[in-house]
Amino acid sequence: MAHIALPDGLPGIRGPMAFRPETARPINELVDVLLRGPHTLSPGERELIATYVSSENDCRFCQTIHGAIAAHHLNGDEKLVADVTCDFRLAAISEKLKALLAIAGKTAQGGRHVTAEDVARARREGATDLEIHDTVLIAAVFCLCNRYVDGLATWTPDDPEYYRHRAAMVAANGYAASTVAPSAEER
Amino acid sequence: MAHIALPDGLPGIRGPMAFRPETARPINELVDVLLRGPHTLSPGERELIATYVSSENDCRFCQTIHGAIAAHHLNGDEKLVADVTCDFRLAAISEKLKALLAIAGKTAQGGRHVTAEDVARARREGATDLEIHDTVLIAAVFCLCNRYVDGLATWTPDDPEYYRHRAAMVAANGYAASTVAPSAEER
Repeated sequence: MAHIALPDGLPGIRGPMAFRPETARPINELVDVLLRGPHTLSPGERELIATYVSSENDCRFCQTIHGAIAAHHLNGDEKLVADVTCDFRLAAISEKLKALLAIAGKTAQGGRHVTAEDVARARREGATDLEIHDTVLIAAVFCLCNRYVDGLATWTPDDPEYYRHRAAMVAANGYAASTVAPSAEER
Repeated sequence: MAHIALPDGLPGIRGPMAFRPETARPINELVDVLLRGPHTLSPGERELIATYVSSENDCRFCQTIHGAIAAHHLNGDEKLVADVTCDFRLAAISEKLKALLAIAGKTAQGGRHVTAEDVARARREGATDLEIHDTVLIAAVFCLCNRYVDGLATWTPDDPEYYRHRAAMVAANGYAASTVAPSAEER
């Protein structure tokens, strides 16, 4: 049971977002810019960063929904998503993305863990300043979301089909449009 | 030196915010709602939560600027702010705020650290669901800000007078209006 009285039937972050729409709006706007805005990193790559950080922070809701959204963007490749959260160094992704995931993981541990050498390595693999900036900020934003979801003990559905279905909706419509209101089948 | 090329002369979070205004806007809106919006917790109390979390996360820029803003709201009581970051259980604050700071500290460690007993204690001291929600979210937001500031190795000024001056400006005008553009004396 959640720590505070949240609206019924809304899993994960969506319960507290419906409880406090004044703060939900800027959080969704931030996530839409970072994960879905025009970018040199694909939406699938950015969702992999979000998924990996949520996995490192052991947030089951966030890693499952963002893993499903990542897979949706990556032609349904759920195995690749699982490989990244298991050990990204062995996954079939670019060396640049591996260097960015290393920065994301250190950011999740605490900002001071990120070293000049971590950043130099990402740059050697072709990462731009904007890509490095956004990697740090995506990791930091998911340190927010993971704590928001688990700090209030929100509900995490078990059915993988739920996440696949929601992933398709978020991929089509974005976070701001999908997060707060329950969909028809949830009412 | 910061890990990426940031605009000159802007300390802490303001450098990356000027570098990426698309993400700065929703972050500032979120912080303005949480720390300055209409509330049953005073701005000083909410800034103390932000300061305490930033101190627990060892982010020198955030704990110093938010400590200065907290003191500004608390009639200049810098000793009270120092007492809260040193050991809030011994500080001259309400039992309700102590219970909320305990929740904030556990949220910073990771959302799953917050227990039903922590929340029950806050409720016994008179905390409402909204106050508990906002405490968790303020803590989570500063886990974002602290990692953003330190993950990019931004510049932290040493002069305490800098923070007092900025604190008065932020207290008067809010975060969105104060954060990005350099003030006259910074140009």
